[in-house]
Amino acid sequence: MSERPSTERASGTDNDADDGPNTTRRTFLKGSSAAAGMAALGLQGTDPANANDTDDADEDDDGGDDGPTNVILFVGDGQGRAQLDLGRYLKSYRKNSEKFPLNAADVTYNVDRHDAHGSAMTYPDDPEEFVADSAATATALSTGHKSYNGAIAGVKNDAGEFVPKQTVLEQARDMGYAVGLVTTARMTHATPASFASHVPSRDEEEKIAKQYVRDSGVDVLFGGARSYFLPDGRENDSANLVAEAKRNGYNYVTTASELDSLDSAPALGLFSESDHLSYTLDRQDDDDSTQPGLGAMAGTAIELLEARGGRKGFFLLVEAGRIDHASHSNYPVVAHEQLEADDVIGRLLDYAEDSHGETSVITTADHETGGLSLGTGGPYDVNFDVLDGMNASTATVVPQIEEAESREEVASIMAEQMGVELLDTELDELRAYNTPVAEILNERIRIGWTSTGHTAENVPTFATGPNAEFFDGTVDNTDIADAIRKRLNGD
Amino acid sequence: MSERPSTERASGTDNDADDGPNTTRRTFLKGSSAAAGMAALGLQGTDPANANDTDDADEDDDGGDDGPTNVILFVGDGQGRAQLDLGRYLKSYRKNSEKFPLNAADVTYNVDRHDAHGSAMTYPDDPEEFVADSAATATALSTGHKSYNGAIAGVKNDAGEFVPKQTVLEQARDMGYAVGLVTTARMTHATPASFASHVPSRDEEEKIAKQYVRDSGVDVLFGGARSYFLPDGRENDSANLVAEAKRNGYNYVTTASELDSLDSAPALGLFSESDHLSYTLDRQDDDDSTQPGLGAMAGTAIELLEARGGRKGFFLLVEAGRIDHASHSNYPVVAHEQLEADDVIGRLLDYAEDSHGETSVITTADHETGGLSLGTGGPYDVNFDVLDGMNASTATVVPQIEEAESREEVASIMAEQMGVELLDTELDELRAYNTPVAEILNERIRIGWTSTGHTAENVPTFATGPNAEFFDGTVDNTDIADAIRKRLNGD
Repeated sequence: MSERPSTERASGTDNDADDGPNTTRRTFLKGSSAAAGMAALGLQGTDPANANDTDDADEDDDGGDDGPTNVILFVGDGQGRAQLDLGRYLKSYRKNSEKFPLNAADVTYNVDRHDAHGSAMTYPDDPEEFVADSAATATALSTGHKSYNGAIAGVKNDAGEFVPKQTVLEQARDMGYAVGLVTTARMTHATPASFASHVPSRDEEEKIAKQYVRDSGVDVLFGGARSYFLPDGRENDSANLVAEAKRNGYNYVTTASELDSLDSAPALGLFSESDHLSYTLDRQDDDDSTQPGLGAMAGTAIELLEARGGRKGFFLLVEAGRIDHASHSNYPVVAHEQLEADDVIGRLLDYAEDSHGETSVITTADHETGGLSLGTGGPYDVNFDVLDGMNASTATVVPQIEEAESREEVASIMAEQMGVELLDTELDELRAYNTPVAEILNERIRIGWTSTGHTAENVPTFATGPNAEFFDGTVDNTDIADAIRKRLNGD
Repeated sequence: MSERPSTERASGTDNDADDGPNTTRRTFLKGSSAAAGMAALGLQGTDPANANDTDDADEDDDGGDDGPTNVILFVGDGQGRAQLDLGRYLKSYRKNSEKFPLNAADVTYNVDRHDAHGSAMTYPDDPEEFVADSAATATALSTGHKSYNGAIAGVKNDAGEFVPKQTVLEQARDMGYAVGLVTTARMTHATPASFASHVPSRDEEEKIAKQYVRDSGVDVLFGGARSYFLPDGRENDSANLVAEAKRNGYNYVTTASELDSLDSAPALGLFSESDHLSYTLDRQDDDDSTQPGLGAMAGTAIELLEARGGRKGFFLLVEAGRIDHASHSNYPVVAHEQLEADDVIGRLLDYAEDSHGETSVITTADHETGGLSLGTGGPYDVNFDVLDGMNASTATVVPQIEEAESREEVASIMAEQMGVELLDTELDELRAYNTPVAEILNERIRIGWTSTGHTAENVPTFATGPNAEFFDGTVDNTDIADAIRKRLNGD
């Protein structure tokens, strides 16, 4: 059983006082399914109906050193220092806007609860490029091999041929662990793909889907974009991979409520049509959304994997995939994605503290995206009230503005959805260029970006569980794969 | 005696193989005086004549728990994650440009050698501003009190009056520790000032100089800008503070060679006329420079403080002050400042490992400056060959270009001093605007900036020595003052 963090700071999530350190696994799972997203937004905690359902945990409280070994790798795609800190301060602002900013001891930001704190180098092994893409970095995390940008779980040999490399997920599967992949991005996107498929280019998403279903043996796959698995959405062949998965025994689900009812693996959950899941803020703001939050997916995955892994245990990748997309687009909504990530990290750490057996949680990023900074030229300020006032992402609002028929309508959309009363000059700008919504918000909030691509700084890296101290300091991203392999081997 | 880092990575500085873990204090001191700057540039290590001078260390090897307590606070002004990583990769490039980039295990970057790794929150207590300046942050580090931007070691009470707060240096002094301040910035600049003076505004540098000499009791003061201490340079009174200091027993020095000959405190070293010391690269490139490097100043300070502190020990602030200035100006030379910082941090850690008694080294920053990122829009690359080819800072080259009389002369200056053959379009740009040298280099190197001011991300923070584990995680900058006080109290 892993030790609780040695820090005296309160564990548990601040947004969710009733769902703190004593949270049971069952509570985490069901609670997160219904409430993770809401809790991330500070709205509501666990469903009380489930909060009392602690029977499972009590029954399981006979573990110890002989219990299962679990390894959970949380990847915030694009989650650099500034992204984390933007989320930290928004959480602080929401906890107490009057006393904002709160001292580090007065707001629990969940990455701080890890036992070990350090950073990871992200550079690829690419003859042309020093800044990594998500394929090369996920390949480093999954296989322990640096590779070229675009590579999915393989390297090029001297003859230029693609050579697949075994991933930590595949090793775990072969050793009898239950294995799973959870992401808010497309299921076939580079990060999850690099753990359970092998292709020379990340663009081969139809092949990735095929390898998932036919070759990977992954017990739980939860993410977006079912079109890559269905005949209508596939350009290169008309394989119905959903039907194949079902024939192979997979439970297939497409909505949050179906996810909530899932009771066994193998399971395939594809919760959007052809792209990533929506940004957290849009999911929350849309009563008709059938998409689950990352916490719901991760919680259900753990429940299913725990049952399937038995005494052996499980390996699970959880990716907060849309931090990266928000950062590519220089959207301030990256802060809200970080709040969802924080909520999930908190619940993973609760689970690690609570579980029998030994659970390692490693939290890292593949790279930073956007060159984000808190503060930019001019006044020394960052306006968290503006960030807090946003009710939807720029991705949702821009199409509405493009369709707006009057200046007044644009003003009204921005006021209602973004919480800002535009100046006349800003309205002129918005009408003239049609889409600089993010620029106006960035300027108002006062956050800066240097890029719409990735950057090469080390990414903050954290770990909890046996041998977590390895992560105290600077490691290479390939070292993370090695550390996971050691845990799987019981070292 | 503090433990050596638990990591298996080699200790010692890579640039300086003969000056590794077995370095004696004496070697550090004399060696650094002559060679720190050169070592920082990968040119040369310790003077062999001194490397064998281990007598002092042998004689002192009878210490243990009864020995002195030393606390060294290293502040990289403006040293954010990206600044550190830019230095890390330049060091890696210089170690082996053919195999660049080297794995984390193959290049020793000295911040990684600390026992504890975390980050510190930097926000001020300012009604108007969320992003901190160096006065508010230095006041937080020195007194444990958040204050407003501009405050030097004090806060405003409800009536708006300035209330001085005791600093850790003053506490140390009052307890019988020897105390010192070392910086590459002006001696009277906000960071050192906040440890040994109290004024409502950082701009009151003449008052700061007066308080240093008349009130502070600081045993060692090494930095830039003697004009603030001399009658000709002072606007508000004609006090000759150098003369006063001498009358009070201070040894006064103004050149690197005089520094090298210093053999006792109290000592006042002011190594430039009216501004900060030069950028490292310019100091190295100028045979006529009489300015010492940061390593020489820190090394001599430790030698003098060690003698003066006796069995009690010492407190020393070492500031790499020009990381901030390079970042304000968006100058790529920030990388070379980080190399000097790395060299000094390595030597401080060598000292902590080697010293009898207990030495704590805390390495942090006051804030990030510039919103630096490695990589910016467009190609996924960072060109360390360009960074490595620079022979002078932009600060030196810009005036030369402004005085150049022909296009050819500009091209020649840029080729010789900056190592870049300019394109015709770049030459046009340079002639038209006169000074975008930094922009051209940033574009060539591919580093990005969001600001010419500060930003609000947490700053990387490290510690070695007793109770270093406090720094594993996120702390507030005020917590650093509290941790120092505890060490001074023997906790």
